[in-house]
Amino acid sequence: MPLTKAIYASSKDAEHAFYDAIHRADIEAFMNVWAEDEDILCILPGGPRIVGYSNVRETWRHILDGRQRFTMRLLNTMVMPGPLFAVHNLQATVMLAGDNPELQGQIVPILVTNIYIRGALGWRLMVHHASPTQSEGILSEASSTLH
Amino acid sequence: MPLTKAIYASSKDAEHAFYDAIHRADIEAFMNVWAEDEDILCILPGGPRIVGYSNVRETWRHILDGRQRFTMRLLNTMVMPGPLFAVHNLQATVMLAGDNPELQGQIVPILVTNIYIRGALGWRLMVHHASPTQSEGILSEASSTLH
Repeated sequence: MPLTKAIYASSKDAEHAFYDAIHRADIEAFMNVWAEDEDILCILPGGPRIVGYSNVRETWRHILDGRQRFTMRLLNTMVMPGPLFAVHNLQATVMLAGDNPELQGQIVPILVTNIYIRGALGWRLMVHHASPTQSEGILSEASSTLH
Repeated sequence: MPLTKAIYASSKDAEHAFYDAIHRADIEAFMNVWAEDEDILCILPGGPRIVGYSNVRETWRHILDGRQRFTMRLLNTMVMPGPLFAVHNLQATVMLAGDNPELQGQIVPILVTNIYIRGALGWRLMVHHASPTQSEGILSEASSTLH
């Protein structure tokens, strides 16, 4: 555990830290973005509700341990700002890697709703709801940005 | 259009009105629950982002015009209350009807995040994000409550 916890001055700062932690597969930095609350909620594409700090941590520890298996690309974020809470909605793609040739290179477009709240210790993530989407727009945008 | 608009005293009241309007296929009552804001956001299972009052209205007008084709059942709601905003997360099922024998009777479990904000005119819906889920828990609960 880090000795001092990062404090995020805005929901954008918190979100940057969130995806940076995923990219670096840093579970401590990742969990630092979440509110320390038993009501935090995480939904991954097609998956069930994951509720509470320890359950979210356990799920993502598994995901980040296998970090070679996907690459996430953020394409477009819509922000609904507020003084005490903010909602971010992201278009993104997950590119699958790994040993299965049928999955390797497959690009899955997703939509994500992230809800941040401002507390005494700055902005924290309360809800992460990610789901598959069939949007043509996302895939064509992804094709043009993937190299 | 109704001459007077309903004002919801709580996010639960707004949510009740939302699903009641879907059940009754009442597009005016349904749209009354939404904030009159160009930033309102609606994501249906597997679908793209729908942004803005007129786009949300047009999409749901089509859905509610074909209202015989599905039945929605709300199974479990988790509420994160707040003085100015509230997040509701619902487990639900959509039972498909219609002419296609392959789809008829199929039960699709979904998860929904609804974000409500409190304004001068009471509580209104800002974001509706619905997505498919594979949760065994939802399906088994649905089986026991569907008759």
